[in-house]
Amino acid sequence: MYSNGDVFVGEIIGTAILILFGAGVCAAVTLNHSKAKAAGWVVIAFGWGFGVLAGAYTAAPLSGGHLNPAVTLGIAIDTGDWDQVHLYILGQMIGAILGAVLCWLVYYAQFQANADKEASQPTLGIFSTGPEIRNPVANVVTEVIATIGLVLPILAFGLTKGLGTSGTQVLIVSFLVVGIGLSLGGPTGYAINPARDLGPRIAHAFLPIPNKGGSDWGYAWVPVVGPLIGGALAGLIFNAAF
Amino acid sequence: MYSNGDVFVGEIIGTAILILFGAGVCAAVTLNHSKAKAAGWVVIAFGWGFGVLAGAYTAAPLSGGHLNPAVTLGIAIDTGDWDQVHLYILGQMIGAILGAVLCWLVYYAQFQANADKEASQPTLGIFSTGPEIRNPVANVVTEVIATIGLVLPILAFGLTKGLGTSGTQVLIVSFLVVGIGLSLGGPTGYAINPARDLGPRIAHAFLPIPNKGGSDWGYAWVPVVGPLIGGALAGLIFNAAF
Amino acid sequence: MYSNGDVFVGEIIGTAILILFGAGVCAAVTLNHSKAKAAGWVVIAFGWGFGVLAGAYTAAPLSGGHLNPAVTLGIAIDTGDWDQVHLYILGQMIGAILGAVLCWLVYYAQFQANADKEASQPTLGIFSTGPEIRNPVANVVTEVIATIGLVLPILAFGLTKGLGTSGTQVLIVSFLVVGIGLSLGGPTGYAINPARDLGPRIAHAFLPIPNKGGSDWGYAWVPVVGPLIGGALAGLIFNAAF
Amino acid sequence: MYSNGDVFVGEIIGTAILILFGAGVCAAVTLNHSKAKAAGWVVIAFGWGFGVLAGAYTAAPLSGGHLNPAVTLGIAIDTGDWDQVHLYILGQMIGAILGAVLCWLVYYAQFQANADKEASQPTLGIFSTGPEIRNPVANVVTEVIATIGLVLPILAFGLTKGLGTSGTQVLIVSFLVVGIGLSLGGPTGYAINPARDLGPRIAHAFLPIPNKGGSDWGYAWVPVVGPLIGGALAGLIFNAAF
Repeated sequence: MYSNGDVFVGEIIGTAILILFGAGVCAAVTLNHSKAKAAGWVVIAFGWGFGVLAGAYTAAPLSGGHLNPAVTLGIAIDTGDWDQVHLYILGQMIGAILGAVLCWLVYYAQFQANADKEASQPTLGIFSTGPEIRNPVANVVTEVIATIGLVLPILAFGLTKGLGTSGTQVLIVSFLVVGIGLSLGGPTGYAINPARDLGPRIAHAFLPIPNKGGSDWGYAWVPVVGPLIGGALAGLIFNAAF
Repeated sequence: MYSNGDVFVGEIIGTAILILFGAGVCAAVTLNHSKAKAAGWVVIAFGWGFGVLAGAYTAAPLSGGHLNPAVTLGIAIDTGDWDQVHLYILGQMIGAILGAVLCWLVYYAQFQANADKEASQPTLGIFSTGPEIRNPVANVVTEVIATIGLVLPILAFGLTKGLGTSGTQVLIVSFLVVGIGLSLGGPTGYAINPARDLGPRIAHAFLPIPNKGGSDWGYAWVPVVGPLIGGALAGLIFNAAF
Repeated sequence: MYSNGDVFVGEIIGTAILILFGAGVCAAVTLNHSKAKAAGWVVIAFGWGFGVLAGAYTAAPLSGGHLNPAVTLGIAIDTGDWDQVHLYILGQMIGAILGAVLCWLVYYAQFQANADKEASQPTLGIFSTGPEIRNPVANVVTEVIATIGLVLPILAFGLTKGLGTSGTQVLIVSFLVVGIGLSLGGPTGYAINPARDLGPRIAHAFLPIPNKGGSDWGYAWVPVVGPLIGGALAGLIFNAAF
Repeated sequence: MYSNGDVFVGEIIGTAILILFGAGVCAAVTLNHSKAKAAGWVVIAFGWGFGVLAGAYTAAPLSGGHLNPAVTLGIAIDTGDWDQVHLYILGQMIGAILGAVLCWLVYYAQFQANADKEASQPTLGIFSTGPEIRNPVANVVTEVIATIGLVLPILAFGLTKGLGTSGTQVLIVSFLVVGIGLSLGGPTGYAINPARDLGPRIAHAFLPIPNKGGSDWGYAWVPVVGPLIGGALAGLIFNAAF
């Protein structure tokens, strides 16, 4: 349906925009010298949701705008078509790293101000998720269920008459993502997307941010494995029930 | 219009998603060790609204996505078709209990942390509604009017040309539910849905949550009776006025 | 286009729902023993906006859902058709009073708790608008400009291809009203609708609320005259520019 | 496509409404004696977004509703059609100044209260943007990337089937602008529009506001140059990738 080149470019651009907005809103509420400092959870959730809106509408004409390996996996299980899965995921990973670098550039002066040891803050939370209570099994379960809550509705949206042809499907996915953030983000910060977590974590590891703190690689598998299980389960539930 | 099996499965899945998000957002703002702790009423209202979005769009192709016995009742009074009402309500009740269990799994580590007696919190408010001022007659009246405010617009939405065919009807119901939460949720926490309140209350009673407190069965009839009266009145008003 | 009876009934029901939600959200953030107590301006603005959504979609099939004499006036000036203007305005006034009574019923226990002299609060702000700085000329100017900001876009929405046929026009008006609240509500509380202010003020005057305080009739003309001038100017600007 | 006169009038009216709402929300959260005082960043972001909704839908039938020289530039680079660019930009500048004056009228009593030296506040932030950390290169980079985040999605929205014909394209642009504010507004206050910043800055310079403080002309080039570079880059990226 989409050419290989379009899929690859579309997922890079779209995921870069998603992470630019998503990491951006985390920077906005976290960093000193930001006008949105401490603006609260509602800002986080809507910021990520509208990042999906921006990224997915931009990528839609090129690749359909998955921006998330868990979504790509769920769709592949649903359709049985695995031909371009590797292109989608590769594009998503590159895009996610690129988006994190763009976020760092937008907040460059704020990140540089982190050099002040007295006022410096850990910065990983701007890039990647981390649990409030570290419990790998519980954290994986949280990510699995939250990702089902993302991918199962997305698969079902395709069945609502008119939603695709009126072009508002992405808008509704955006609000769905806001909802997941508000409702299911409390325990782990809702990765629900392996690329969204791993890409920016890689960027955090190599970017020259003063006093940036560790990149917590011990936790990195949870927001990869959990969402992939969730995406696969959503595809299976969809095929069984619909 | 929908097969019996589809109605039953659709209402189970859809209501489970609704309660997963709805109870989820209450857990998010209530429990210790949640990133959304104390995020405020606007988060509650949008969380429930986008829970409707997620659940009702998912259920829509199978059952139309009622997710609420008061809505089912209002539609039955409007159309005069009572054939599948019992299937809808049974599916809604099972889905609501299932959704509450899923919410408990998402916040499992947080619920376990409630074992700490010093920091433990009452947990019923995550699952079911309760009044700020306990006054059964006033509480019923609040739920009756709030439910009319839900069901009467839903019945009227069907008359707006284009809304159904463009697939945005559920989106608008979602914002309607946000509005009811913001405006009419103050006194009783807006059950406006017997399954939404009774199902999670049953789950609260049997789930092994440390220091969970009582399930307040003395109040349980109010958020069942009030919304059913409201849904019926909405159907009658709609038939009379439109 | 709409029958006289439908216009009258539609405007009563729609405006009643609008004021139920709008006065409701003011009660929600104002009254003691409300779960949304002090939830902030964003809650007020979205509560009123989704009140428009609920009321206008409900009234739309009967009367087109004006719910506001300033909108009715602007449309009459645009179209030159004044035949049903009196029916619209009469229905709006009756509906606004009815909606205020419904809001009082929803928050009945909270209003009764106002009998406690120690904790009692002035209640007029739940029903009607009032200025932060009392300056009749400036207050009228604020209401005139804010109402142009409501009615001119509404008239223009009709020209956007597809908006009407996809049924999302009312949704967009709702967000417009949220925007007016956020941006232009600071000085006077954005009546932008004579019925929205005068109807609930009348209800405030006759409802048996303990320690309710005065109904501030000296200000009552401002949120009637300002919006009517604004609606008329919007009609004239629209006819001149479009 | 649009006549010269319509382009000019449409951009004046639309940009005036945009700035009325946008400067309005900054006044609402900044000035003493405003009901929305200190209502927070979420209010700022949604206020500007719904200002885009109000202004762009109003201008759409006359000029397509650019309201932003960076958008006009990106579209010209995409289409290769530069015929009306000067009319768009001139209209935008006049509209932006006009909108700032309207905002001053709406908050006239509040601005006059700034005469009280004890409680007076700097007022430039209501009209124009300023950086949290003054670093021209970093500030320009922030504005460049944020503007790409605006214009590239806008160009891509045109490719999503159904979005234009259902009339919801402007709604989606509005939420995109909310997202940019939430995510990318932290460092510089997101001008992302030369007219939005320069027009109100001119108005700030000539309006008779007591104790208004300086108009910071030393910074004025940043929110002009950055967005123009961003808009041009978005056009080039779009032409290369889509």
